[in-house]
Amino acid sequence: MNDKSLHESAQHILKSALKAVDPYNLIFEQIKRKKNKLIFKSGYTVDLDKFQNVFLLGIGKGVAPMARAISKVLDDKLIAGDIIVKYEHGQSVDKIAVHEAGHPIPDENTLKSTSLVLNKLKKLSDTDLVFVLLTGGGSALFEKLPDTVYLKDLQVLNEILLGCGASIHEINCIRKHISDIKGGQLARHIYPAKIITLALSDVVGDDLSVIASGPTTPDESTFEEALSIIKKYKIENKIPCNILDILNDGFEGKTAETPKSNDAIFNSVINMVIGSNIISLKAAEEKAKKLGFNTLILTSMLQGEVKELSKVIEALIREIQQSNIPVEKPACLLIGGEPTVKVTGKGKGGRNQELALSVLNKNIEKPYLFLSCGTDGTDGPTDAAGAIITHATFQKAEILDLNAKEYLANNDAYNFFSPLRDLIKTGPTRTNVMDIMVALIP
Amino acid sequence: MNDKSLHESAQHILKSALKAVDPYNLIFEQIKRKKNKLIFKSGYTVDLDKFQNVFLLGIGKGVAPMARAISKVLDDKLIAGDIIVKYEHGQSVDKIAVHEAGHPIPDENTLKSTSLVLNKLKKLSDTDLVFVLLTGGGSALFEKLPDTVYLKDLQVLNEILLGCGASIHEINCIRKHISDIKGGQLARHIYPAKIITLALSDVVGDDLSVIASGPTTPDESTFEEALSIIKKYKIENKIPCNILDILNDGFEGKTAETPKSNDAIFNSVINMVIGSNIISLKAAEEKAKKLGFNTLILTSMLQGEVKELSKVIEALIREIQQSNIPVEKPACLLIGGEPTVKVTGKGKGGRNQELALSVLNKNIEKPYLFLSCGTDGTDGPTDAAGAIITHATFQKAEILDLNAKEYLANNDAYNFFSPLRDLIKTGPTRTNVMDIMVALIP
Repeated sequence: MNDKSLHESAQHILKSALKAVDPYNLIFEQIKRKKNKLIFKSGYTVDLDKFQNVFLLGIGKGVAPMARAISKVLDDKLIAGDIIVKYEHGQSVDKIAVHEAGHPIPDENTLKSTSLVLNKLKKLSDTDLVFVLLTGGGSALFEKLPDTVYLKDLQVLNEILLGCGASIHEINCIRKHISDIKGGQLARHIYPAKIITLALSDVVGDDLSVIASGPTTPDESTFEEALSIIKKYKIENKIPCNILDILNDGFEGKTAETPKSNDAIFNSVINMVIGSNIISLKAAEEKAKKLGFNTLILTSMLQGEVKELSKVIEALIREIQQSNIPVEKPACLLIGGEPTVKVTGKGKGGRNQELALSVLNKNIEKPYLFLSCGTDGTDGPTDAAGAIITHATFQKAEILDLNAKEYLANNDAYNFFSPLRDLIKTGPTRTNVMDIMVALIP
Repeated sequence: MNDKSLHESAQHILKSALKAVDPYNLIFEQIKRKKNKLIFKSGYTVDLDKFQNVFLLGIGKGVAPMARAISKVLDDKLIAGDIIVKYEHGQSVDKIAVHEAGHPIPDENTLKSTSLVLNKLKKLSDTDLVFVLLTGGGSALFEKLPDTVYLKDLQVLNEILLGCGASIHEINCIRKHISDIKGGQLARHIYPAKIITLALSDVVGDDLSVIASGPTTPDESTFEEALSIIKKYKIENKIPCNILDILNDGFEGKTAETPKSNDAIFNSVINMVIGSNIISLKAAEEKAKKLGFNTLILTSMLQGEVKELSKVIEALIREIQQSNIPVEKPACLLIGGEPTVKVTGKGKGGRNQELALSVLNKNIEKPYLFLSCGTDGTDGPTDAAGAIITHATFQKAEILDLNAKEYLANNDAYNFFSPLRDLIKTGPTRTNVMDIMVALIP
């Protein structure tokens, strides 16, 4: 198998992986309508006749196609709805107001759209039903802050949190405790209406209290934990004072904790994950098998620093090359999850591009292909989703006088791969189930 | 499967893994003697009648049992020999002088024994044959330094190198260039006699130029590289001046480079790896299958920081628990390699104990067992080889008021596991094929 056919195989596999987690398709796979009953794949049945009005609220980069699908399923039972999506991720949907806002950094439109939506929710009664659609990006796109905290403070906080090496769980714990809607608090606004939440998981382990900061899910984290995370990463002096004040006030019991699982508001809430990373990996596996590869899905829960993970990827590729372990050549190894990068340089890139560059830097001797790709089509603040490397990339780079080590040291993977044309560019995919990595060993 | 039977299974699997790489057995598996001919499994045949004298030189923690086996194979054809082993790793062998020296830090006995051995080699002729036996630890146990460099300098250098995060490849590059015997240079001393080197690999990828610093293997690394590694880890100001002088003199061509592959001395050298990590993993796999586990060997080449690798182990265990991927429960996942720890605390431990403690700290919810063990029976400067954890360890630790996070932060895994009786203590195994990790998910 030559370099070109390796590339072609990888493109086919990646395409299948992304298609399987298309949010529009996922809704139809999850819900069948029989007359006025909705029958969910997961076992629930909902009788629409029992509700006076059915509304929709979608939050996240991928909710536009989900809303279109739900609107089709509900047909005239749907009264109205709102979706809040990332800029350029909107699609017009019948009866639905589309709002666009900032991501990954929340902006004025985040606050405006949220405020508008929360006002509408005030009119709901206990005979109403709200479909809440959630995908990745929901944490930034939907936000109501305490009166003393300004958007600028939140932006500063997010930048610090994303840059300090904290896990998404830790970041969300803090976000929830300076928010009026995260960590189950949206359910307070919707109550007494009923809630059915359909979520596309962009988090390791598919924990509903984490996806989009779990707006309709009980939150077991506390103000105390939020403060301890800030200590752990030694960012006390970087975080705006008014945010620290909010957390300290909460810790001292001056403001309400996020709602816990015994809160009555959750009696009328059904939460479901309808799409996740493993679904994507399984579709990739099926395609790879059809292309003649022996396949192995390793995990959909990969986490850790890119620099160290690249050593694990190296170990796996070299062992397959050398001894056909853990899977025989021609082999396709599939991994999902969300690595992290501790940024120290000033270059341009994202975790997927940097992982590919780190693996390349190991200079594995025999033929292979490796790609890492964000399923949402965005990798860091770039227009690429990831990058793809093969055994031949090193030589190609030498011809163009690109020094992989130097670009890596400067966190500048984008500008390394761009002239090589080895960036993966999908455009917005409107889905988000974290990242997938594919290794092909011919 | 309860906690106790999980522990028992793990002990059986570990025992099989270690037995398979017993150096004594490995020699007999490699060499069959037919009259005066030695027939090697790898294809070589050596006619002993063609040599006037056959000698033996063994260097490394595990060479005593190898020497006993070779002595048995050669019988009266063996004239004499020397082995240099770690303290308490000696065993008396007929016709062989046993020397003990310091490991992992070389000491006075390292230099004395080496000097004595090199003096004997001066008398060799081109009708002589020397069996060189190598195992891990050989880098510290065998050393001849330039006149201007003292043992204390070498000890300082080694401590700096082992603590700075450099890979074993990088450490060895520097060691070779301040040595008169490493990096193929022992072959200069033995020449014109013939050499057959039998090595037990304790390095990722089983590279003969790295095992025991490759005393009989061409060395492609240079003085220039040695200097660039020192720059990379920013240790220029920590390393003794006389060592920097040696490297700079070499870089400027004032002293000889290590011998490269085109050097005539290597025409009379045969190098073979007879034991390695993957052999150990395969034996473990066989045992686990017999005990009823579905098995998967992931790689024998794992490298990277323990802190990040623990996240990968977590991802693998949780995925198996949740979705029987990549192997169905009851599952046994086997991994080999050599992780690294960047020590910042003042506690007692080793990379295997710390990896186990890091995985424990993830607080994986469902039952599992994980162990990490140095195959040489030594993990860091402790009397343990590694540690073993299960789902129940966390509760056990709480009862004894042991805070896993605090012990981890202080690199104090030994004192965490010691009261729990979860240290693995094998005593000296006289083998060394890096570390093995076993995860059982019932």
